[in-house]
Amino acid sequence: MTAPLKIGIAGLGTVGANVARLLIEQSAALNVRAGRKLTFAGATARDKRKDRGVDLSGVEWFADPVAMAKSPAIDVFVELMGGEGDPAKAAVEAALAAGKPVVTANKALLAHHGAKLAAAAEAKGLALNFEAAVAGGIPIIKSVREGLAANRLERVYGILNGTCNYILTTMESSGRAFGDVLAEAQKLGYAEADPTFDIGGMDTAHKLCLLAAVAFGNAPALDGIHVEGIERITPHDIVFAREFGYRIKLLGVATRSDGGIEQRVHPAMVPLGTPLADVDGVYNAVVAEGDLVGKSVYEGRGAGAGPTASAVLADILDIARGPRLPTFGAPAASLKRPAITPMGDHQGACYLRFTVIDRPGVIAVISRCLADQAVSIESMLQRSRAPGEAVPVVFITHEAREAALTRAIKAIVTAGVVAEEPCMIRMERF
Amino acid sequence: MTAPLKIGIAGLGTVGANVARLLIEQSAALNVRAGRKLTFAGATARDKRKDRGVDLSGVEWFADPVAMAKSPAIDVFVELMGGEGDPAKAAVEAALAAGKPVVTANKALLAHHGAKLAAAAEAKGLALNFEAAVAGGIPIIKSVREGLAANRLERVYGILNGTCNYILTTMESSGRAFGDVLAEAQKLGYAEADPTFDIGGMDTAHKLCLLAAVAFGNAPALDGIHVEGIERITPHDIVFAREFGYRIKLLGVATRSDGGIEQRVHPAMVPLGTPLADVDGVYNAVVAEGDLVGKSVYEGRGAGAGPTASAVLADILDIARGPRLPTFGAPAASLKRPAITPMGDHQGACYLRFTVIDRPGVIAVISRCLADQAVSIESMLQRSRAPGEAVPVVFITHEAREAALTRAIKAIVTAGVVAEEPCMIRMERF
Repeated sequence: MTAPLKIGIAGLGTVGANVARLLIEQSAALNVRAGRKLTFAGATARDKRKDRGVDLSGVEWFADPVAMAKSPAIDVFVELMGGEGDPAKAAVEAALAAGKPVVTANKALLAHHGAKLAAAAEAKGLALNFEAAVAGGIPIIKSVREGLAANRLERVYGILNGTCNYILTTMESSGRAFGDVLAEAQKLGYAEADPTFDIGGMDTAHKLCLLAAVAFGNAPALDGIHVEGIERITPHDIVFAREFGYRIKLLGVATRSDGGIEQRVHPAMVPLGTPLADVDGVYNAVVAEGDLVGKSVYEGRGAGAGPTASAVLADILDIARGPRLPTFGAPAASLKRPAITPMGDHQGACYLRFTVIDRPGVIAVISRCLADQAVSIESMLQRSRAPGEAVPVVFITHEAREAALTRAIKAIVTAGVVAEEPCMIRMERF
Repeated sequence: MTAPLKIGIAGLGTVGANVARLLIEQSAALNVRAGRKLTFAGATARDKRKDRGVDLSGVEWFADPVAMAKSPAIDVFVELMGGEGDPAKAAVEAALAAGKPVVTANKALLAHHGAKLAAAAEAKGLALNFEAAVAGGIPIIKSVREGLAANRLERVYGILNGTCNYILTTMESSGRAFGDVLAEAQKLGYAEADPTFDIGGMDTAHKLCLLAAVAFGNAPALDGIHVEGIERITPHDIVFAREFGYRIKLLGVATRSDGGIEQRVHPAMVPLGTPLADVDGVYNAVVAEGDLVGKSVYEGRGAGAGPTASAVLADILDIARGPRLPTFGAPAASLKRPAITPMGDHQGACYLRFTVIDRPGVIAVISRCLADQAVSIESMLQRSRAPGEAVPVVFITHEAREAALTRAIKAIVTAGVVAEEPCMIRMERF
């Protein structure tokens, strides 16, 4: 009979405590699925005495995650501390060096150091699994890495941050402003006290580069991502979007072309009636486009104790069952840094909202600046006309080069006809 | 270095020929994903000389699939012949007996003999992979069996037949009748010359029992499925559905309760705004509900040469990479036939359409028959009123026991107030 697999958990926050609890309480079911006995054998966290609703008797406690990583008391190191640097990084490195497979939910760590850690895992023939790092409630890493492995994937994109999606959904349903909805989300626990990481798009960027690495077989390339957040979306934009037949979502989009890969995170207009437009609240969704399957769509909860624990446990079960797949699907040695297509080369239509003082000639100036950059206009909308007051004016452009759009916007601002920073939202016509 | 893995393909129809072609043409990419060399080594089909656009030089040809299954010329047996009995069954049994892992797209074979074949595979420590049997363009078997393995799944359901979904979608968009749209679908190649299997629901039933087996860890139980097809859906029903806020989809639904599992295939009213309502044309979609992840949704192409080949190749890659998972997620010995909840115990609301001769007292008779069975009415709709002519009358009931509904319908027919067979469509309020 196979020996029990001893699990050590570093980090006993909401997710870690839930994984620990499930390892204990769902032991019978998990052992059947694993084909062997799993035991919760080791733990480490900041405070041992804190009550987490988990029975720690019989579990070896470590003051230091690196010590646990090296200890013969555990076979699998589960890293749920978070953070791109130490102690998470040192502990994962120590576990791999000690010949132990690693399961982690740490997107920042892998986004920054994924290729190096994958090589360390591969050198020892170990698994480094990270399903929980991207959209915990959907097995998207497994689906892309294994389920769609025979495809050449051309594009992978989605809604990867539940906080932003909750805020945008609530702004739309309630008509309230961004700051107001954010404050409420913080009160309800849907947004962090410091929400910069989520609403600024960096959390989505971390997830996107991991998804792209698995989809395209390259090293995660975080610094090659164009990142914008949702801070500047107003209720006006949401109403205008709806009028044009779109909804605004914070998307991460990775596209492969012959020249390299394009990775971008920004609010986008998503056409009503397409799968991503209907993804509401804290849900995540990912679309993968491959040469054999065409479009496949995956939707589920992105985070939270249950979905994330589900992903962590699935990774543990995979290790228990024996397979060891290359971390990013391809051998670590083949994980080259991809060529990055600069955002200036991006081609796409876009929504532009200018807040202008309504006086004669303003529209003419804006139109001229767009025309000077060969950006042509598909439609224009100006709602109210109270002479002398600031009013929003919206343009939808035809497809144009990003660099040309940026120059046109700069010229419009310089011409002094707008009362505040223009808002640009790219249109996605998937 | 690991030796090449020699693939033998039995059945060179559209899917088999595409798998063969991809094994040859995408060899470099597949070898990287596999971590070893894959070779297309053996083939068998009815006619060797037929031009399939595949280079068969260097491939050993077998007149008999069982002979190929036993031959040392191949390491993996890929069964793409179809059919629940021999030669597919004999060939798969021979391959497993000869110690060869099997990949199959054959839902009928597994729906009928899955538990026995799983036991044969397990006895030899072999993989028996069947991702292509259910919704080829979505890695749903892998997602449920591995990705959601830590969950207790309570319900799994979806749109599993592209032909039916295409017909229903086209009936809705064109307003045309079932027979008319079916004939066109046959001309376009979206429906078989003998479409009974698809439109009667049996194809969905095969897929549903495989999905349920993996989700709930039981033996596939095809004979425990209540099956109805889409033959009796009329444009009237589609229009009425829309008015009530629903669309009609052919669903397969498997639910686990303490008493056993309920499996049913029938047209259903799906509320607008829920993920399944927007799945159009030949697309498939599956929803899995688990205790940890809540609801997760998977959508993609169900069939066709590309998606099915994608699934077959993913299964081959899994074998090349080494893991061998139990066929249905749980050890074969634990695959008991589940207790089946009879359809009469099903609880649900339902849409009832009666074609009645419009004369006084008809509605009273129908209402009385429903009331006699304690079925209460949520809403009623009668559109045109041309006295003496047959008109459709629609009732939406509150939740009721299926057995009571069946008795009420029988009483209504017996009372002689309806001009044709009543149409009953269950409402799903997921």
